[in-house]
Amino acid sequence: MARVVAPATVVDFDELRRQVQRVNAALGASDLVLLAFGNASAVDREAGVMAIKPSGADYATLRPDDITVVELASGDVVAGSRRPSSDTPTHLALYRAFPAIAAIVHTHSSYATSWAQAEREIPCLGTTHADHFGGSVPVTRRLREEEIATDYEAHTGDVIVERYRVGGLDPMLLPAVLVARHGPFVWGESLQAAFANALALEEVARMALHTEWLRPTPDPIDTRLLRRHFERKHGPAAYYGQLPVPRER
Amino acid sequence: MARVVAPATVVDFDELRRQVQRVNAALGASDLVLLAFGNASAVDREAGVMAIKPSGADYATLRPDDITVVELASGDVVAGSRRPSSDTPTHLALYRAFPAIAAIVHTHSSYATSWAQAEREIPCLGTTHADHFGGSVPVTRRLREEEIATDYEAHTGDVIVERYRVGGLDPMLLPAVLVARHGPFVWGESLQAAFANALALEEVARMALHTEWLRPTPDPIDTRLLRRHFERKHGPAAYYGQLPVPRER
Amino acid sequence: MARVVAPATVVDFDELRRQVQRVNAALGASDLVLLAFGNASAVDREAGVMAIKPSGADYATLRPDDITVVELASGDVVAGSRRPSSDTPTHLALYRAFPAIAAIVHTHSSYATSWAQAEREIPCLGTTHADHFGGSVPVTRRLREEEIATDYEAHTGDVIVERYRVGGLDPMLLPAVLVARHGPFVWGESLQAAFANALALEEVARMALHTEWLRPTPDPIDTRLLRRHFERKHGPAAYYGQLPVPRER
Amino acid sequence: MARVVAPATVVDFDELRRQVQRVNAALGASDLVLLAFGNASAVDREAGVMAIKPSGADYATLRPDDITVVELASGDVVAGSRRPSSDTPTHLALYRAFPAIAAIVHTHSSYATSWAQAEREIPCLGTTHADHFGGSVPVTRRLREEEIATDYEAHTGDVIVERYRVGGLDPMLLPAVLVARHGPFVWGESLQAAFANALALEEVARMALHTEWLRPTPDPIDTRLLRRHFERKHGPAAYYGQLPVPRER
Repeated sequence: MARVVAPATVVDFDELRRQVQRVNAALGASDLVLLAFGNASAVDREAGVMAIKPSGADYATLRPDDITVVELASGDVVAGSRRPSSDTPTHLALYRAFPAIAAIVHTHSSYATSWAQAEREIPCLGTTHADHFGGSVPVTRRLREEEIATDYEAHTGDVIVERYRVGGLDPMLLPAVLVARHGPFVWGESLQAAFANALALEEVARMALHTEWLRPTPDPIDTRLLRRHFERKHGPAAYYGQLPVPRER
Repeated sequence: MARVVAPATVVDFDELRRQVQRVNAALGASDLVLLAFGNASAVDREAGVMAIKPSGADYATLRPDDITVVELASGDVVAGSRRPSSDTPTHLALYRAFPAIAAIVHTHSSYATSWAQAEREIPCLGTTHADHFGGSVPVTRRLREEEIATDYEAHTGDVIVERYRVGGLDPMLLPAVLVARHGPFVWGESLQAAFANALALEEVARMALHTEWLRPTPDPIDTRLLRRHFERKHGPAAYYGQLPVPRER
Repeated sequence: MARVVAPATVVDFDELRRQVQRVNAALGASDLVLLAFGNASAVDREAGVMAIKPSGADYATLRPDDITVVELASGDVVAGSRRPSSDTPTHLALYRAFPAIAAIVHTHSSYATSWAQAEREIPCLGTTHADHFGGSVPVTRRLREEEIATDYEAHTGDVIVERYRVGGLDPMLLPAVLVARHGPFVWGESLQAAFANALALEEVARMALHTEWLRPTPDPIDTRLLRRHFERKHGPAAYYGQLPVPRER
Repeated sequence: MARVVAPATVVDFDELRRQVQRVNAALGASDLVLLAFGNASAVDREAGVMAIKPSGADYATLRPDDITVVELASGDVVAGSRRPSSDTPTHLALYRAFPAIAAIVHTHSSYATSWAQAEREIPCLGTTHADHFGGSVPVTRRLREEEIATDYEAHTGDVIVERYRVGGLDPMLLPAVLVARHGPFVWGESLQAAFANALALEEVARMALHTEWLRPTPDPIDTRLLRRHFERKHGPAAYYGQLPVPRER
């Protein structure tokens, strides 16, 4: 767990905390979250910090200065008086390992979590999936006994990172993962993108389940169609949306 | 059925009734309840009474003084002019047998009731379940012919208590049960906890159903992971949320 | 189809139309109805008329004087300038055959309609079902070629009535039926009861589907438990709710 | 992709854009659309143009003058400063091939898309389906490698048109199609009709899935019942609704 220390700086990361508060409020109002099962964070890489929802807090009444700011390297709290989400070590592990990601959303959304509980990756069966995820959404291995016993949340981050490293997976091509027996962690190049990916993942998980009922063992989508849809929206050849300029980061 | 008697005391249990009214209103506004299929109660163990929703009442227009107060020992009405929920004898049996519980929520929520109708316990397949229930959610045996014929609601309470006694189950570790062919009864250390457990149970029931579709006969979650998640939120070693002080009771 | 004739009376059935308008508005706002797939009617047996939603009308903007009043015996319009629901002959057939019913609600609600399309009766698998329906919800036979060709809607009513007559079924014990390949018709002793039964039917249909997934070919609920629950709410021995007096009719 | 050119005319198609904006706003507020997965367009055949939602735009904040107007023959933008939906070439192909259609709605609605991903046509299993679609909702073949590589969206339109031509299907009898691995395109004689058909398609897709679970391999609805229901609402013998006059177009 992150240690809570007195802020050692006058910087209070107002804008970052405001953005994180807003996305957490949107998350709490969405169908993705029941009770307090979810949290969103964002990173400021120049400042070397991440801002995250406090543990067990109510989404609707959250104010920007309730958001806790944590140093990326040490995990120490540098702004905010509340204890950060218990999932903080998982978020930190992902920000450290994946330098291109700017924000993370964790939920127990119903269908995505069902795939995680079944320990199955979500195959890409259509263009809705391909618009957001450039292949099957991966699932981690289970945590080992000793990984559960100590630093459980940090080890949760580690098995995610391991899954990408071992599988040679690109976190920007596959901005969502299922933690076995637990649920999804989703990220993106911005808070908006991470939240959109979390919404898309839940819908994709639901449609994949229903597709399997209608056609057991469907073959995955054609690789060219997958790439075409992912690249319509992502990367240098994107032609979806209004702006040929780089997106906010 | 509880007899309705004239209140023999000037105490009118204002605060208890207000709390019970508020949670019943929240219950009626939730997806857990259709029509009048559900009720919440809370106990005041010092005063030896429980407060419960009146029978067949509309959730939205319920006022605190509509809530009926019943003596725990006798089942007699001690405050309120309305007939208590027909499920009152079930609630009484649970409060009497489980001294640690402070509140009970009964619903016919859709997925949990489907498991109850299938007479299957809900296996613990992931951490969402483990965050609230320290093992499979148990199911009672069916009521026998003579148990249905007389004191049906009291016998419903009895088969719940029997299930915990025979199975050596801890009601605080497993604060929800499925009554065979009927639906869930859920409880907790406070009204808020009981309501949260009822919401969690419905989601857990839904995800377990979908998990089974994706992987028939999944093995249950690792015992260590189960205990780790339950103990993150419950008991002396809890580190989830903001407060190291004991919760409201 | 009912002929539209000039009203031959100064009676305009204000109260009846207001009630029917209100329940149709509630129906349109509920999850039971998509687009214009549904209608509610009520009968005034002394006046020998029924009031029903106009065909294809929008639920939200419906006013009481949009409701069409039809003579029970002839099917002639006696009040209202709008064409009555195309399902009017079905409603008329039910009011004529079942003298105890006071109101009818027809929907294409999703799960109930799925059972109707599967041409399967909904077995009683739990107490939620038993609280409203005293046995399996029956399904009609398919309409024959000539029954579809002429007076289709009247014949729809006829196959419902035939199902109850042939099966020796009591319409007040089983206040809902599935028309094969079409959807549910539901009724009751009042508009409120008919609407509540329509809501309960959809939930019961959904839970029965899920129960079958969790336990293929479950046996139906014990007859004594079924009767106990139905009689808790209906008939002379009812003890659910607040009033020992007869319900509004 | 349509080229964006300077408007060569003073006509700005106010009314058409206002209608298209309104239906896109309704679409965005409906359950059919998640994120930006959907768009509606309408044609003005006299003017030889179609109006469509801009690419990636937010439904809720869309104003009429955000709507882009595109020449039917050339695909050139003739009014509006925003890039039209990336699906524009698909819409154009349908308007060119099907002269009777006035509006198109494209969504990734959950159940319809699941059928599209399973590459299965939706059989007509009941009257809800028959009220809108005069037979099975067809599914296209997959796009070939070279069709994906260049002019992907135009080829998506081409495989739809091919499906109707090869199958001898009438686009007004079957105003919806599933693009394999992608999702539904739906149309109608007006924007209202196209939107209603899109809502009906999603419900019909959901009920067909559930019907198959309750009765594997159900036989399709009787042809006479199918025709009766479709013709109650469509064509010269229609008797559903209030108006014997031709509908708005």
